[in-house]
Amino acid sequence: MDARIDELQRKGAAISNVISLAGGLPAPELFPRAALAASFLRAIHAPRGDAFQYGWPEGRERLRAWVASRLRQRGADVLDKDVVITSGAQQALDIAIGMLFRRGGRIGCDAESYAGALDLFRARGIEPVIDRGGAGVRYVMPQVSNPRGDAMSEDARRELVRRARRDGSAIIEDDAYADLRFASLPGPPLVAEERRRVWHIGTLSKTVSPGLRVGWLVPPRQFRKAAIESKRAADLQANSLAQTILEDFLFRIDFDRFTERARRFYARRAQRLARALQRHLPEWRFREPSGGFAIWAETRAVADDAAFLEFALKQGVSVDPGSSFRVGPGETMALRLSFATENARRIDEGVVRLARAWRRFRRRR
Amino acid sequence: MDARIDELQRKGAAISNVISLAGGLPAPELFPRAALAASFLRAIHAPRGDAFQYGWPEGRERLRAWVASRLRQRGADVLDKDVVITSGAQQALDIAIGMLFRRGGRIGCDAESYAGALDLFRARGIEPVIDRGGAGVRYVMPQVSNPRGDAMSEDARRELVRRARRDGSAIIEDDAYADLRFASLPGPPLVAEERRRVWHIGTLSKTVSPGLRVGWLVPPRQFRKAAIESKRAADLQANSLAQTILEDFLFRIDFDRFTERARRFYARRAQRLARALQRHLPEWRFREPSGGFAIWAETRAVADDAAFLEFALKQGVSVDPGSSFRVGPGETMALRLSFATENARRIDEGVVRLARAWRRFRRRR
Repeated sequence: MDARIDELQRKGAAISNVISLAGGLPAPELFPRAALAASFLRAIHAPRGDAFQYGWPEGRERLRAWVASRLRQRGADVLDKDVVITSGAQQALDIAIGMLFRRGGRIGCDAESYAGALDLFRARGIEPVIDRGGAGVRYVMPQVSNPRGDAMSEDARRELVRRARRDGSAIIEDDAYADLRFASLPGPPLVAEERRRVWHIGTLSKTVSPGLRVGWLVPPRQFRKAAIESKRAADLQANSLAQTILEDFLFRIDFDRFTERARRFYARRAQRLARALQRHLPEWRFREPSGGFAIWAETRAVADDAAFLEFALKQGVSVDPGSSFRVGPGETMALRLSFATENARRIDEGVVRLARAWRRFRRRR
Repeated sequence: MDARIDELQRKGAAISNVISLAGGLPAPELFPRAALAASFLRAIHAPRGDAFQYGWPEGRERLRAWVASRLRQRGADVLDKDVVITSGAQQALDIAIGMLFRRGGRIGCDAESYAGALDLFRARGIEPVIDRGGAGVRYVMPQVSNPRGDAMSEDARRELVRRARRDGSAIIEDDAYADLRFASLPGPPLVAEERRRVWHIGTLSKTVSPGLRVGWLVPPRQFRKAAIESKRAADLQANSLAQTILEDFLFRIDFDRFTERARRFYARRAQRLARALQRHLPEWRFREPSGGFAIWAETRAVADDAAFLEFALKQGVSVDPGSSFRVGPGETMALRLSFATENARRIDEGVVRLARAWRRFRRRR
């Protein structure tokens, strides 16, 4: 991560009155605290104390079974034993690229992609490039992209799979926001269409809780054993406590009904942010997202987004600079604005502050 | 990990009646379940829901402060902000070697060392070699070594630090078992003697709970920022739930008194295993450990330890083959025998089974 942006974000987070349109943190009011607490209390009294003990590197059996069964419901040929539980989706991605790239190389991405993934690729000596068909590995978010919050078209999906089959390239499918499409349950993942070339990645961070750090990787079958060894090398195993709580929790609820509430909740917040932007910052362009946590807003100005962030923080609002999400250089300044964390009133007030910051920024010097 | 040994260990773990002298799992009866549950219940009601939310990559402030203060008590110049909370000591080690080795190389180790570290080094293309003074990076466990359970002599410590200063090499100090020296509190860590060349690693896995996956890395100061970025790339952050529970728990107890109980407990079990070995397997040689979870037992036979493990499992006892811990080839067969997991009666019975397996193994063919 850019050191200056990191420093500014930390400064912003330390000021209590800053409204956060940055970061993509799920709404704390959606954490199912009471249910997780009940699961915790059941877990800690289990005689062997599994929740506190070492476990296998691939993760707990019932949790793997839950993940596999969700993927089978969506049409994918995934056995329980195909699932490797990871310390969040980020680690699943790290394991996948560690196996796909022996030393360095290029990875094909959308022009805008998840900043945490881009940082990871670069940290591992892999250069993200805008995918124009030539990359041996592609990183995609077909259901709900980050930062744009849109779905890949049917044509683009077909073309992606066709290309992978033709040139033998690999696809990393990051499904992190798939359960947060506003209008519908997640469609079939790419791994349902092409099992041998797709590395599927998922997480409970967006729907249940990011602090539990539980995600998963479903590698192509021939990489299963090596993926487990890679997981073991990285940190032995995902934390037992969260796994034990989650497997209890997930088998007690109807997950689709659980996410339905979240999907409606975030759809309302997305609309609220969109309306506020239309009203107070009509010169910015954006498309209303179809899922996820954020709106990708493009200004028409050529400007330094870290400099703008300083202005925004002075007005009491934080945002994510668009440059963090861009694979190549952008022409005009863009921002990722999250509607996930703050309530409706604070979203409105955050945009008012943002508009004030924008006016001052435009008049600077 | 050797695939055959892995498969055998999994087979052993799946049989309910097998007595485990393998694995190094802490005794479940020592998990402070009630206190951790109380900390959990306090944590989940905090308004922002920190336990379930994203946090900073370096970890929670109070937890870092606790680690730093423990190290300062032991004489090390460590500030709160020098501590990076990791997903267990294993990840701390992965981050350290990732920064110390750009591509491959050799790492100096004791002739026997922690199997998880050796696996990790090899997975990352780094060759563990027996340290004879030439390695640019050394991996050591000065307080309580694994698998031998002994402390480094004062002379060896002085020589190690002297060499690092002379040739500018780095030392990775794995302090995982430091709080489990049977007869005394941990002495000064190497990082107290040499701050600029020592990468210090610790964990709560052996004393509080391995399932929580909380460890730490204290890199030399010039690597602090890069270590945090490396942690972020690997998995964003250690899990918030465990961190939140632990920081509450650790500030409510007297940690030295807490570990005193564990130190006495494991000392008794170590003695029990030692007595049983002397009685039933007098031809095996070992030194009584001064801390940790295991006894390193050497047979006088030249034999395949994985083949012996098969015999042991048939008799209902599992052990860790010594080859997993050896940096070079060993001359005679050795085993790591853990006394941590099973109670006294089962330790006795485990050794009876082990002796039976040994007799049959010696008579085979």
